[in-house]
Amino acid sequence: MGKSLKLLCKDSAACVADPGQTRFDLLTRGALSASSCLLPSDGSCHSDSMAAARAEAKEHENSHNNCLIQLANPHVAAMKEDILYHFNLSTSTCDFPAMFGDVKFVCVGGSPSRMKKFIRYIAVELGLDHPGEEYPNICVGTDRFAMYKVGPVLSVSHGMGVPSIAIMLHELIKLLYHAKCSNVSVIRIGTSGGIGLEPGSVVITRQAVDACFKPEFEQIVLGKRVVRNTDMDEQLVQELMQCSADLKEFTTVVGNTICSLDFYEGQGRLDGAICFYTEKDKQAYLQAAQAAGIRNIEMESSVFASMCRTCGLRAAVVCVTYLDRLKGDQITSPHEVLAEYEQRPQRLVSHFIKKSLGKV
Amino acid sequence: MGKSLKLLCKDSAACVADPGQTRFDLLTRGALSASSCLLPSDGSCHSDSMAAARAEAKEHENSHNNCLIQLANPHVAAMKEDILYHFNLSTSTCDFPAMFGDVKFVCVGGSPSRMKKFIRYIAVELGLDHPGEEYPNICVGTDRFAMYKVGPVLSVSHGMGVPSIAIMLHELIKLLYHAKCSNVSVIRIGTSGGIGLEPGSVVITRQAVDACFKPEFEQIVLGKRVVRNTDMDEQLVQELMQCSADLKEFTTVVGNTICSLDFYEGQGRLDGAICFYTEKDKQAYLQAAQAAGIRNIEMESSVFASMCRTCGLRAAVVCVTYLDRLKGDQITSPHEVLAEYEQRPQRLVSHFIKKSLGKV
Repeated sequence: MGKSLKLLCKDSAACVADPGQTRFDLLTRGALSASSCLLPSDGSCHSDSMAAARAEAKEHENSHNNCLIQLANPHVAAMKEDILYHFNLSTSTCDFPAMFGDVKFVCVGGSPSRMKKFIRYIAVELGLDHPGEEYPNICVGTDRFAMYKVGPVLSVSHGMGVPSIAIMLHELIKLLYHAKCSNVSVIRIGTSGGIGLEPGSVVITRQAVDACFKPEFEQIVLGKRVVRNTDMDEQLVQELMQCSADLKEFTTVVGNTICSLDFYEGQGRLDGAICFYTEKDKQAYLQAAQAAGIRNIEMESSVFASMCRTCGLRAAVVCVTYLDRLKGDQITSPHEVLAEYEQRPQRLVSHFIKKSLGKV
Repeated sequence: MGKSLKLLCKDSAACVADPGQTRFDLLTRGALSASSCLLPSDGSCHSDSMAAARAEAKEHENSHNNCLIQLANPHVAAMKEDILYHFNLSTSTCDFPAMFGDVKFVCVGGSPSRMKKFIRYIAVELGLDHPGEEYPNICVGTDRFAMYKVGPVLSVSHGMGVPSIAIMLHELIKLLYHAKCSNVSVIRIGTSGGIGLEPGSVVITRQAVDACFKPEFEQIVLGKRVVRNTDMDEQLVQELMQCSADLKEFTTVVGNTICSLDFYEGQGRLDGAICFYTEKDKQAYLQAAQAAGIRNIEMESSVFASMCRTCGLRAAVVCVTYLDRLKGDQITSPHEVLAEYEQRPQRLVSHFIKKSLGKV
């Protein structure tokens, strides 16, 4: 009992400076060489501006047709059946290309009811709604996640925190792969705590950073530390910022986002069940965050950024701030005020989708 | 942008060997000295065996009456109002002692629908069910968590992964504190992947270990690494094991449990969207886990164990295994088989509650 993993991870220090990282880098490079679409670093698949894309629609279409969703896992192609357990969907019982082949925009958020509201809203915005239309939950038979679809838009809940969204993303990316989707953008429309911003402000994430403000996502894989990049797609950041400028409805900023593994101690709150620090300690941390260009704190952006990058998906995080953490910890605004705040990322992303489809 | 938190966490290596750990230890000890009920290490609150407790009911009651729920946070007592945001409950609008003061057993699990089924089941088992009785969700107005109550039993969902259950536990422990509850046991009834066990086996966790098999829970608080103990209450483990022996319905073992931050790469699965290792690598990891006394892998036990210990709550983790990870990754058993497996921890814990209440 309690024997540590000697062969693979001798101790904590070894874990941090693990030679496995080199191996991972090599493997990553190997995987990347298989397809130019896997990483957007060279911009070959993702550099078209929205205006240019509209002006040169034909060329845009041609250049993007090769950008099928790629997995960073050679094993899946050899599987006879793939059960997406937490979606309650399987390749042996569902026709993924027929069900999802036309998806171009995936919007994700923590709350299932919010994602249901969003599908109704975007259906109306895209002129795809019909009187009395219902949007059934595609993930019927499980309550782990909820999924809704209208036209080219998929709306999926992801629960709270890195592990929960990671499960959803593994299965979502496989779903898009099995469905032979191409040129998909994935946008998280979430809620967060702001740093030095008026409540209700919207933050578009440039880099997701960890609790020490490092722009990376760390995880332990087979006992070895693996670190991945969390940069967002700068082109998509600028396109979304332009959408906010078009709308002129609320303050929107571009900034870095702390992805915390905890809502209370991990975010320096003084109101959890456990707290061994003072208001002064907390203020020092949050002010250091502000000085480092951090504008908000949420709980999913780092793994979201790194997984989408690794699989060549264009991705963005757009979160409203419910409070200014420099001024407090508890979310005290009335329900109707928070409900209006919650809609802001949806309105911004709806405008982006309509603009992308040439509907505004 | 990307500037790291120099004052609080100079770099990754400093983070690991941070002097803050000493400070945390001192603070923890300081908090503990305030109440003998905060940690069960001396056994003063938790050492009664179930049989002894029944035989000496009066003494048991007297000795436990002082074990009110304690927070490890001095700030909460000074708050005028405490909004438990993710439960949609507030001390200014709810009478916590009236609503929850009689709670003695809290059962938690990932899925809201499973926790609803459990409250119906335990109501019947305790003879507290009435024809046509409904068990409304106490957390109405939010879909973050679901909560149900019957008699002394509270049933609460926690979503998937460490961050999600940590949010729930912070708010649950504060709820029990505001309600002035005493002598509460918290049991996670979950699902997991087994290691070298027949599917359907139940594992009672002795120690929750991390992905490198270390029995600790690590988190970053204000940029500093904090490590906490994840031992479970050995007395409760033995009582639960005796309940399984009483029932004779399914195989139950006591063992260590990996608490992973991921379902796919973090657990060595080959079927995620991302996988840069081989079947051989995976087998080496899982076999090393088996050799270290690990019997299953799930995603919540470490923070569950450490938070309950820190706040003096008697806690246990009872998970059924859906598959043997040495033989595969996908959960392929038919729905009805999994549904029966899912009930096993519920049956075991129901027997424990009935026995504790002198009802068997």
